[in-house]
Amino acid sequence: MARKSEIKTSGRFAYEGLERVIHEKARLSIMASLASHRDGLLFADLKELCALTDGNLSRHLQLLTESKLVEVWKGYKNNRPQTLCRLTDQGRKRFLEYVNVLENVVADAMSAGPSARRRAIDPGFSPA
Amino acid sequence: MARKSEIKTSGRFAYEGLERVIHEKARLSIMASLASHRDGLLFADLKELCALTDGNLSRHLQLLTESKLVEVWKGYKNNRPQTLCRLTDQGRKRFLEYVNVLENVVADAMSAGPSARRRAIDPGFSPA
Repeated sequence: MARKSEIKTSGRFAYEGLERVIHEKARLSIMASLASHRDGLLFADLKELCALTDGNLSRHLQLLTESKLVEVWKGYKNNRPQTLCRLTDQGRKRFLEYVNVLENVVADAMSAGPSARRRAIDPGFSPA
Repeated sequence: MARKSEIKTSGRFAYEGLERVIHEKARLSIMASLASHRDGLLFADLKELCALTDGNLSRHLQLLTESKLVEVWKGYKNNRPQTLCRLTDQGRKRFLEYVNVLENVVADAMSAGPSARRRAIDPGFSPA
């Protein structure tokens, strides 16, 4: 059991900076794809990279545009209608802030490490 | 717009290993707290570290125990009933696998970096 001295701060593991609109798995996937493709991605390519269906990608893109993280452009390329998606400046900034918190999660997990065996449960305790 | 050659693999950014039961923000918080406290944490201390309410912590702990990631023990300490929570061996293993994928997300974001200005949108495109 943890000694009191180990418990440093209230909310130490709350990771407040993990913005929920970005943290959801499909949206994290979209944000990471777009962060790695600064000029934007066509809908079909983004769908492929994220392994999402048309419907799912559309739904999540709508939420991301409403949250001002992503911008969507309609146009023509080679005479065919196309949709281009890219991060807004604010989206890039907020994504990097989010990733900084992810780095903290990783650092916490690494420092926990595969250390020595844990203590046995005290005899007074039984499975709930 | 991304050149075709940049798009390497279908699902490249899908991050399949981000197990949803761990990825949810409150549960990630619980898993990280317990990973950092190998001998387990009392309910009250865990609640404090994660900044969760009693009800929320209970609900998420139930899901984590059903998923065999966490074990919960009931007992007495200083003559008062206590609940002790800790990771199962499987929970520790699956959490470390999850964190490995998080590291990939961070690495992808870092390699995207704050590089040069992006290209302007092609003239044929307009905001959706």
